[in-house]
Amino acid sequence: MPKQIAVIGAGKGSEETEKLSEEVGREIAMSGSILICGGLGGAMEAAARGAKEKGGITVGILPGTNTSEANEYIDIKIVTAMSHARNAIIARTADALIVVGGGHGTLSEIALGLKSGKQVIVLEVNESLADVKGVSLAKTPREAVEMALGGASAR
Amino acid sequence: MPKQIAVIGAGKGSEETEKLSEEVGREIAMSGSILICGGLGGAMEAAARGAKEKGGITVGILPGTNTSEANEYIDIKIVTAMSHARNAIIARTADALIVVGGGHGTLSEIALGLKSGKQVIVLEVNESLADVKGVSLAKTPREAVEMALGGASAR
Amino acid sequence: MPKQIAVIGAGKGSEETEKLSEEVGREIAMSGSILICGGLGGAMEAAARGAKEKGGITVGILPGTNTSEANEYIDIKIVTAMSHARNAIIARTADALIVVGGGHGTLSEIALGLKSGKQVIVLEVNESLADVKGVSLAKTPREAVEMALGGASAR
Amino acid sequence: MPKQIAVIGAGKGSEETEKLSEEVGREIAMSGSILICGGLGGAMEAAARGAKEKGGITVGILPGTNTSEANEYIDIKIVTAMSHARNAIIARTADALIVVGGGHGTLSEIALGLKSGKQVIVLEVNESLADVKGVSLAKTPREAVEMALGGASAR
Repeated sequence: MPKQIAVIGAGKGSEETEKLSEEVGREIAMSGSILICGGLGGAMEAAARGAKEKGGITVGILPGTNTSEANEYIDIKIVTAMSHARNAIIARTADALIVVGGGHGTLSEIALGLKSGKQVIVLEVNESLADVKGVSLAKTPREAVEMALGGASAR
Repeated sequence: MPKQIAVIGAGKGSEETEKLSEEVGREIAMSGSILICGGLGGAMEAAARGAKEKGGITVGILPGTNTSEANEYIDIKIVTAMSHARNAIIARTADALIVVGGGHGTLSEIALGLKSGKQVIVLEVNESLADVKGVSLAKTPREAVEMALGGASAR
Repeated sequence: MPKQIAVIGAGKGSEETEKLSEEVGREIAMSGSILICGGLGGAMEAAARGAKEKGGITVGILPGTNTSEANEYIDIKIVTAMSHARNAIIARTADALIVVGGGHGTLSEIALGLKSGKQVIVLEVNESLADVKGVSLAKTPREAVEMALGGASAR
Repeated sequence: MPKQIAVIGAGKGSEETEKLSEEVGREIAMSGSILICGGLGGAMEAAARGAKEKGGITVGILPGTNTSEANEYIDIKIVTAMSHARNAIIARTADALIVVGGGHGTLSEIALGLKSGKQVIVLEVNESLADVKGVSLAKTPREAVEMALGGASAR
């Protein structure tokens, strides 16, 4: 059974963050896992683009009221019409969450993921988010996905 | 872009209803569409089984708190932890809804589908649900899926 | 402990429906119960106005993203940002639901109320909604509130 | 129009935290504001007890499926049946949020509050939570409520 792995990050990130997200998306697809994300732009779009490059399946859990807000790399468009509360659905749906950057929305997803007992893996580029108690740290996209697959323990 | 078509029905239905659901699932898969359902047993499981027989993709929008409640034919397991309120997400996520039977839960999905402006197609086996103002009627699973694809008008 | 009684109806109803809603709101307040509603206009506003006339407490469970959409008679403004899915919260929050008219949104609330095991009381003015299996019928606002307080059995 | 002020904290806190919560609840009630909280035990119960001591109105936005999980000081019991996703409703419903301590659930509420553009005031007893970018700090319950009423700026 394939794992469902979420990529979490800003809707508008830096070029570096987007490159990382895309790489995480590729690694998720190459592992045979399903990519879960928020379905919009920035880190979400980059991760979905990476996953599609490698033939993966991509799921966007959207905050708004219709499918048209999904980026073009999303296969399955879940329309929650719940605004930020959809972050709780992302946290529950993912077997593990990989964090590539972001602000308050990302922080809420980290917290909800940890609250739901999920492994939350932060790429080390995120100094501020790496400080949340209970997250795991990864140095590279590949290491992050390996941790998500293997269930490495939280620090 | 494939359509997302929901199959709505009882978690525990009659043998006849389940045969119909399975046939609807097959037709959805053969049309290249994605099957959306509630992810549990009865009509939901039968539809997903039908879709997988024909190589389709199946999505379960689950009411509970983890993926384990999904039936074995679900590829993508969306964990809402929202109980009945997940019916609103099914209604929003589907481009069209096909109703194969059911009780109050099904009725709420029909109403939420119509409220969201979606086409709701009731298989004629359901005498009581066929009476809801605004639904379309179909005589067979194939006709229902054709209506869902073509956007036949509501009566 | 006061009961929480919901009034359900169209956001834009007839004059007759609004008079009925207002009377239901008055009866709820006079019974010492708390009025629960969707917080917007039409039947919701009329019921809240009736309840405030008699010094009751009114709660609006709003679909949008801020308190400003509440009508002026709402004391407690619950901001769900969940669109139609807030209907499931109304159904869960109410000890009993009184229906004064409406369309697909109202029908979804009736269905979600019954699915959650709540007593749903339809004022007889609503011929179409009175047909839903499992609802109770009342001839007047007073009778409806008495049924809600006493837990009269569903037909 | 009274403000709606949320108190956020652990379901099981220290004695010191509960004393602070109770004091915040009292100050909210004395200001004529409505107390919003998660409706369960710990900080939520202490805040509601404080508010009721001073004759305030208390609202519990509950995660579960019925009113019985509310603590005994809750006047209005909102039953979301949405588990952690109800934190987003607390964040939206409150005009301002006061944080008295807690773990990942509290952190998600802080993040969702900031994401929704709300003022989030952290009592200085919480060293870890005080570090979240965008929160305001208060030294005492009274100062926290004054900030919530006055809209003091975030640091």
